[in-house]
Amino acid sequence: MSNSDLDNLIEIMAKLPGLGPRSARRAVLHMIKKRALLMVPLADTLQQVATTARECLNCSNICSGTDLCDICSSEKRLNGEICVVEDVADLWAMERAGVFKGRYHVLGGTLSALDAIGPEELRIPKLMDRVASENVREVILALNATIDGQTTAHYIAGELETRGVAATSLAQGVPIGGELDYLDDGTITAALKARKAV
Amino acid sequence: MSNSDLDNLIEIMAKLPGLGPRSARRAVLHMIKKRALLMVPLADTLQQVATTARECLNCSNICSGTDLCDICSSEKRLNGEICVVEDVADLWAMERAGVFKGRYHVLGGTLSALDAIGPEELRIPKLMDRVASENVREVILALNATIDGQTTAHYIAGELETRGVAATSLAQGVPIGGELDYLDDGTITAALKARKAV
Repeated sequence: MSNSDLDNLIEIMAKLPGLGPRSARRAVLHMIKKRALLMVPLADTLQQVATTARECLNCSNICSGTDLCDICSSEKRLNGEICVVEDVADLWAMERAGVFKGRYHVLGGTLSALDAIGPEELRIPKLMDRVASENVREVILALNATIDGQTTAHYIAGELETRGVAATSLAQGVPIGGELDYLDDGTITAALKARKAV
Repeated sequence: MSNSDLDNLIEIMAKLPGLGPRSARRAVLHMIKKRALLMVPLADTLQQVATTARECLNCSNICSGTDLCDICSSEKRLNGEICVVEDVADLWAMERAGVFKGRYHVLGGTLSALDAIGPEELRIPKLMDRVASENVREVILALNATIDGQTTAHYIAGELETRGVAATSLAQGVPIGGELDYLDDGTITAALKARKAV
């Protein structure tokens, strides 16, 4: 019998973002040494998540085994605010901050003429449906501060204006703990333009 | 139902060497997007390797489902040379170079007075048994160029001398493609001392 399973495992691990062939080998050796503590639980949990993970039918967050995610199934989070994010990772980042109490809407990308991604591909119609059905007062556009992100934000803000719903975006400025010397010119310019009285 | 499986998966992934919480989240989201191509095969292969991987009874390489690894079960590799390495990762690195045609012996570490690791903990007695039973002429000590590695190499070389078996070690010098300006003083010193006629 050959070591093909092992080679196979290393090859699959090397496809994960952040890992290459070298770190995949290291991770596999580490797991073999910690078989009961790490390798078997990882295999079981992967299997479990692969079976149960699905997209929330409302906001496209990831949830396990249910049609709606925890946030969309909680009445407490129905407060008239929806935070629009590009990706589930952004939703998780917002939730870690723990300050937003409303619901989310995951676009799944940004508008892009080059990649032929229009509003239909981004669940923007679904967002407009939700704005009506969930009595939304304010949509917070927490999109990345990239050209595509800002284009998308402008498009959605325009759609919301025709429906009389407020659209806001995250403030731009100096990050907490940030040192001016290490910031790019664009951030400093934005922070200066948005300066506030102390 | 909660997202605890997902959190659990991220937590386990974050324990792998080279991954932290942030990259574990990224890897998990990536896998969920490529469920059939990546997540399910990974779960299956992990399960498979966790079940079948074991230590070669002769050299302590990792093999799947058999008592002896591919190298120890091949008569072609029985050529009177044994290459001693610290770890399975080092064995794999030697095999990738593809130039060594003998068999290996994985010590599983280095001698260390501080950590109370003596010859018995390192499979050195087993190496001495193999030197006799496999008619070994030469033992190549491919140990890391660290203090502990070199201490271990010296100890093994001493043991081999009493048995009349040649002990050699990998040459030290400038790596292929290496630039002098980026090399440490120790390497340059070693390379100068071991200089050869052109």
